[in-house]
Amino acid sequence: MAITDAVETHLILGLNLAATFVFGFSGGLAAVRARLDVFGVVVLAAVVGLAGGITRDLLIGVPPETVRDGRFLIAAAAPGVVCFVARRGRDRLQRAVLVFDAVGLSLFCVTGATKALRLGLGPVQAVVLGAITGIGGGIVRDVLLREVPTVLRTELYAVPALAGAAVVAVAHRAGSDAGAFAVVGAAVCLLLRLVGLRYVINLPVADDGPRPRGEGGSER
Amino acid sequence: MAITDAVETHLILGLNLAATFVFGFSGGLAAVRARLDVFGVVVLAAVVGLAGGITRDLLIGVPPETVRDGRFLIAAAAPGVVCFVARRGRDRLQRAVLVFDAVGLSLFCVTGATKALRLGLGPVQAVVLGAITGIGGGIVRDVLLREVPTVLRTELYAVPALAGAAVVAVAHRAGSDAGAFAVVGAAVCLLLRLVGLRYVINLPVADDGPRPRGEGGSER
Amino acid sequence: MAITDAVETHLILGLNLAATFVFGFSGGLAAVRARLDVFGVVVLAAVVGLAGGITRDLLIGVPPETVRDGRFLIAAAAPGVVCFVARRGRDRLQRAVLVFDAVGLSLFCVTGATKALRLGLGPVQAVVLGAITGIGGGIVRDVLLREVPTVLRTELYAVPALAGAAVVAVAHRAGSDAGAFAVVGAAVCLLLRLVGLRYVINLPVADDGPRPRGEGGSER
Repeated sequence: MAITDAVETHLILGLNLAATFVFGFSGGLAAVRARLDVFGVVVLAAVVGLAGGITRDLLIGVPPETVRDGRFLIAAAAPGVVCFVARRGRDRLQRAVLVFDAVGLSLFCVTGATKALRLGLGPVQAVVLGAITGIGGGIVRDVLLREVPTVLRTELYAVPALAGAAVVAVAHRAGSDAGAFAVVGAAVCLLLRLVGLRYVINLPVADDGPRPRGEGGSER
Repeated sequence: MAITDAVETHLILGLNLAATFVFGFSGGLAAVRARLDVFGVVVLAAVVGLAGGITRDLLIGVPPETVRDGRFLIAAAAPGVVCFVARRGRDRLQRAVLVFDAVGLSLFCVTGATKALRLGLGPVQAVVLGAITGIGGGIVRDVLLREVPTVLRTELYAVPALAGAAVVAVAHRAGSDAGAFAVVGAAVCLLLRLVGLRYVINLPVADDGPRPRGEGGSER
Repeated sequence: MAITDAVETHLILGLNLAATFVFGFSGGLAAVRARLDVFGVVVLAAVVGLAGGITRDLLIGVPPETVRDGRFLIAAAAPGVVCFVARRGRDRLQRAVLVFDAVGLSLFCVTGATKALRLGLGPVQAVVLGAITGIGGGIVRDVLLREVPTVLRTELYAVPALAGAAVVAVAHRAGSDAGAFAVVGAAVCLLLRLVGLRYVINLPVADDGPRPRGEGGSER
């Protein structure tokens, strides 16, 4: 049991580092597009990589773990440096970034939900906090770049995160903490997100509000 | 004494839940107007309902209480669902939302100040934290929808919250923790807010700054 | 030793209060320019003075110290009142504000790094948290006024803060906690910032991104 715990702790640490790293590219590329300077690019990479987990920890009421562990800072900032420096690689990164981002989302939603459950929060809270871990970075990115957060407006982005976290919460409720369910949860999230991207699925928008200036709505 | 405490604790819990619920409508309706998708509408409702109290708790340095108590999550998210679904009701809600919002502001400013005083903060802090509890949700709503927060620009919105919290802080200073003063504080806040709305009272704007593009100032 | 500690604690408290006060002017003047009302001006002064330190404390995982100490609230809010009331003084303040702001940045980056080191964080974290203490207030100011944070886009602003904090972290690593290094760190930051302002030095922007609408880039 103790051994399993140690393995799982290491597994979750590794997944979190990986998610932080791939999210960093999402932030770094958005920053390059917005023509931030080199400091801004590195900061935005770090913010997108770290903000979701920090928000989760603050909401749970524990000190943000990624702040004290230097590896997270490096994992989040390094993609910013890459995005700024690698002129050639950037085009290819741009095409890959949506997939990267989907992977990060999948990893974060299950690790976030797992952490909440371990700290004694209920299953509903775990699902919400898992989703916040996944989508928090992107929301802060959009606010800093002065956009209404994409995740609130369009695309199938939060639903996959909620679904992935729900798999973990339901398994936990059913008495199982096996890492296998984390893998299933991440897979569910990744699949839903990629299907949503492939078939351009959007969530519905309320249909009788006043239409803002010339934005052809794409709801339903 | 212990009985009074228990009653007061329940009273404050009830008032907080009610304030969270009515604030949720303010967030949900703003989200529908901004044409967010269904997820965005529910999130904005929850954020407006919860952000003030969470900010207060983080500033005091205690774990945000509404995160662990699932009732708050439901009280904050449910109005979002209603705003999204109820096409007909939305018009009537729209007219009622300013009053709802004033009620939420009044309840939050006194419960926020009360919590700060109970946790040993000084009266000035209690007034500020009470006001933050009341106005925090609206500020986050405006930032997410990419607007300069209304409360910083115009209208009599923060002053009622400060006044309501001040009633509680002064009563506490004078040795009284009686719930009656919370009621008086809330009534003072509500009255000031409704008078401000009715007579379109704005706070003064500094009168010699450069005037931004064609915005007819309405100060003094 | 104990005496030195007490002296240093008082020194850091004094420097923090001074930095909060001068940052308050930066917030207050920006708020007057943006035509916020009197409440908005005082709030923006307070936010710019306090947000960096509060963010640092939340990231470290300790209760924000400035919330419980009423002197900080006064030091941060008073400049807002001055900015709103003093019509004549405002012009002179406007010219002085960049220097004020540079002084605040220099003080905050060393006190922030010192606090992080004292609470047992590593040197890299201390540098980052020192910089966050210095630049956090300005970022929140820009977000509330609906601008992409200046510090992410242009000017030599974060680099001086990082350099100042690095002096403190390196001295600490080398076994010295002497206040002298805090002074050196602050001086390094101030010098870099003033040189950057005088010679209009900007950090590089990635040079092959798509250029946004008609903004003549000023990079390199």
